Amino acid sequence: MLDVGFFEMKTSALSTLGRRTAPPPISWLMQTALSRPKLISLAAGFTDNATLPVEISRRLLNRVLRSPQTGRPALQYGITAGETNLRRLTAQQLEKLDTVAATPSSQARRRGVVVTHSPDRVMITGGSQQLLYMTLEALCDEGDIVLVEDPTYFVFLSILQSRGLRARSVRLERDGLDLAHLETVLQRLKKSGELRRLKALYLISYFQNPTGVTTSFEKKRGVLKLLKQFERAAGHPIYLLEDAAYRELRFKGPDIQSALMVRGAAERVIYTGTYSKPYAPGARVGFGLLPEPLFTSVQRIKGNHDFGTANLLQQLLAGALETGLYDRHVAKIEKRYGQKARVMKQALAEHFPPNVEIWEPGGGLYFWARLPRNVPTGVKSKVFQTALKNDVLYVPGELCYADDPARKKPDHEMRISFGSASEENIRKGIARLGKVLRKFV
Amino acid sequence: MLDVGFFEMKTSALSTLGRRTAPPPISWLMQTALSRPKLISLAAGFTDNATLPVEISRRLLNRVLRSPQTGRPALQYGITAGETNLRRLTAQQLEKLDTVAATPSSQARRRGVVVTHSPDRVMITGGSQQLLYMTLEALCDEGDIVLVEDPTYFVFLSILQSRGLRARSVRLERDGLDLAHLETVLQRLKKSGELRRLKALYLISYFQNPTGVTTSFEKKRGVLKLLKQFERAAGHPIYLLEDAAYRELRFKGPDIQSALMVRGAAERVIYTGTYSKPYAPGARVGFGLLPEPLFTSVQRIKGNHDFGTANLLQQLLAGALETGLYDRHVAKIEKRYGQKARVMKQALAEHFPPNVEIWEPGGGLYFWARLPRNVPTGVKSKVFQTALKNDVLYVPGELCYADDPARKKPDHEMRISFGSASEENIRKGIARLGKVLRKFV
Repeated sequence: MLDVGFFEMKTSALSTLGRRTAPPPISWLMQTALSRPKLISLAAGFTDNATLPVEISRRLLNRVLRSPQTGRPALQYGITAGETNLRRLTAQQLEKLDTVAATPSSQARRRGVVVTHSPDRVMITGGSQQLLYMTLEALCDEGDIVLVEDPTYFVFLSILQSRGLRARSVRLERDGLDLAHLETVLQRLKKSGELRRLKALYLISYFQNPTGVTTSFEKKRGVLKLLKQFERAAGHPIYLLEDAAYRELRFKGPDIQSALMVRGAAERVIYTGTYSKPYAPGARVGFGLLPEPLFTSVQRIKGNHDFGTANLLQQLLAGALETGLYDRHVAKIEKRYGQKARVMKQALAEHFPPNVEIWEPGGGLYFWARLPRNVPTGVKSKVFQTALKNDVLYVPGELCYADDPARKKPDHEMRISFGSASEENIRKGIARLGKVLRKFV
Repeated sequence: MLDVGFFEMKTSALSTLGRRTAPPPISWLMQTALSRPKLISLAAGFTDNATLPVEISRRLLNRVLRSPQTGRPALQYGITAGETNLRRLTAQQLEKLDTVAATPSSQARRRGVVVTHSPDRVMITGGSQQLLYMTLEALCDEGDIVLVEDPTYFVFLSILQSRGLRARSVRLERDGLDLAHLETVLQRLKKSGELRRLKALYLISYFQNPTGVTTSFEKKRGVLKLLKQFERAAGHPIYLLEDAAYRELRFKGPDIQSALMVRGAAERVIYTGTYSKPYAPGARVGFGLLPEPLFTSVQRIKGNHDFGTANLLQQLLAGALETGLYDRHVAKIEKRYGQKARVMKQALAEHFPPNVEIWEPGGGLYFWARLPRNVPTGVKSKVFQTALKNDVLYVPGELCYADDPARKKPDHEMRISFGSASEENIRKGIARLGKVLRKFV
C-alpha cells in the first residue's frame, strides 16, 4: 500500500509557466499592511470603502431575485461572451462617453454627433484583468514583444513575465507616450529583425497606473499612425491595447475619446474597461471590445477558462446601468475621489520637500512623486525602510518598470494612492512620508 | 491620417494558442437548441431550473448587504486564494463528506473517524473549470501528456487541445478505470521514452461526464499505486487530478471517499469541486485542494488571471454553508434529480430498442446509451440528423473521446441528460429519440 515516505521527488512537475510565474511584487506589501495595524497604506490600489454601493446592490439584487422568473436566469449558466443585455448596455455606456468626449460643447452635442460601438464586439469578463490575460494568450507566443509605457501597471508586467513575453518600454510624458521615442523603439525593432515579434502596444490611457498620466486623443491617433507605418514590416497587425480601467474615476478636466474613435482604426484597437473600479471590485465584472479575429479567439479561450462570467454579477451590473443608479453612483464617487485627491495635494504641498516633483492626476487613484535621481525609493532603500518603520507604505516606482535592456531601471519614484485611505489617514500618511523624505532628500 | 482602407493584412497576429483554440464542440448544439423552440434538448449539462435557490440567495444576499459593516467587505477586493471563511467552510464540508463516506455505519461514525483537510490548501475559483485550466497551466508544457478516461469531459479535451497537450486514454469500466489497461498505457509510455512527458491523470470520479460512472475507492487507490510505480521512471511526480464536480448530485447508493483519503497520497492528489452544480451555476464558485508546489504556482497564476474570485459570490456561498441552507438545498435537489432520473429510466425502458445498452447513474446529470457498434451516432450520422429533424438533441459520444493514435474513436454512443429538461420533456424527448433509434438499430 501507499505510504507517506514514498512521495519524495527531487524534481517538481511544474511547467515552464508554472515555475516562471512570480509572486505579485505587491503581495508582501499587502501582507505587511495587514500585520501592522497602525500602518497607513498609501500603496494599495483598493477603491474607497465608504462609498461602495452596498444599499444600491442590495436593492438591485432583490429586484433580480424577487421572483423565479427573473431570478432563475441569474442563477443559471449563460453565454460565454456575456449576457446580451449587459453587452448592449456596455456598448451604449461607451457610446455615451465617447459622444460627450467627441463633442465637448452642448451645442455640438445638440447637432448630434452619433457614436456607435457594436455590442457584438463586447466581451464580458471577470474584471478587465481577465481580458488582459486572455488577450495576451490569444496574441502572443513565448518570445513575442509587447510595448508598454515606462512605467506601467505591474501586474501586466507579471503576466508578460510568466508567459515568457518581452516588454519594451516607451517613454512617458505628462500628456502620454513620447511619440518620437515610440518611433525610435519601432525603428530599432525593425533594424534588429524583431518587428515580426511585436504584437501590441499596451496603453493605460486614463489616469495611468502608476503615474496618473492621461493620454491625449492626438497622441492616441499618433500611436496608431506609427503602428500602422510599421505593420508592413511586421507582416501582421500590431494592436493598440487600450486599458481604460480608471476612465470613469475622473474628477477634473474633460473626458477624452477612446482610441476606438480614431477614424479607420477600430480594427486595430482592443479597448478594455471595468465596472470593478467605478462600481465594486467585489462584483468583479469587466469588459473588452475586440476586433476579429481576436474576439472569436478570446471567446473560445474564455470558454475554456470558465464558460462566461457569473450571470448573477452580470445582472447586478445590467440593473445598475438600466436604472441609472450606476451613473448616479459614478457621479458620487467622482466627487469623493476629487475631494480625497485635493486633501492629498494639499498635504503633499505642506509636507513634501520642494525638490520632489509631484504629478497630479485628474482622476484615478494615484499621485506620482519623483525624488531627485540620487535618492532611491526601492524596497531595500533607506527611504522605504524608514517609511515602513514610521508606519506608512507606498509603492516603490521601480516595481512598475519593465526589464528593458535599453535603459537602466529608474529607482527614485513612488506611487501614492488616495483610493482607500480616509481623508484623515491621507493627511497623516503624507505627513509621515514627508518627514521621512526631509531626512533623505 | 488613418483611414479604413489601410487595414488589410493577410496574416493574423494570433498566437499558436489563439489559432489552436477550437470552438467548443457543443456550442453549435446549444445554438441549434436556441433556434428551434420546439426542440427538446437532452444535450446540455445545465442544471435543473425549477430548483435553483432563488429565494435562499435573495435572503442570503440581503443578510450580507444589510449594513455597510457586512456589505463593504463583500464589495471590495479580497485575497487571491479566496476568503478565509469560505476556504475553512469548504474544507469542513469536504471533511464531512469524507468522514461519512469512510464510516458508512453510524456506529463507526460514533467511534469517531476524524478526517481533516487543511483550509490552507483550498483555493476558491471561478467554477472548477477555472481550476482545471490553471492547474494545466501550472503543470504542463506543450507536448506534455495527460491521461484521461475514455470517454471524458469534452471541455477538458478542448483545453488540452488548445494548449498543445496530448491526451492518452484509459479504458473505462462500470466501476471506474480499467487498471490493467492503465498499467499497459503506462508501460507503453515508459517504453517509448514518453513517460517524462506524463504529468497527470484526469479522473471524473463521481457520476462521470459523460458516462455516469463512479470510480470505486479501491480503484482510486489502485490508480495512485500505479502512478507511484512509474514516478521514478518519469523523474517527477505524476498527479491524480480528481474532478468531483457531480459528487453532491447523488441520489442513489453510498458516497465514496475522495482520493485525498488514500493513505499517504494527499501530496499527489489535486481535488476539484464546485458549488455551481449543487447550488447555482450563475453564482459560479468552485474550488480545488492542491498540494505544494502546485498550490503556490496556481495561486500566482490566479493573481494574473483575476486576483481572486468575486467576493460577493464567495460571501453568498459562505452564508449558504454557514446557515445550513446549502445542505438543505442539496438534500432537496438530490430528490429532484433522483425523480428525474427515474422518469428517464422508465422512458428509456419503454421507448429504446432492447439492444441499446443503458448505463444508469447513481447521481449527476447523465445516462449513457451504447448502440450496436455499427450504428453511428455522430453529428453527421443518420441517427443524429433524424433526431434533430424530430426535435430532440443529445450529445454524440464521439465528442467525448480524445484523439488517441492507440485506438479508433468510438462513434456509437450518446450522452443523454436529465438535468435541465422537465419530467414531461424527458418523457417526450426519450419517446422521440426511441422512435428514431427503432428506425436505425
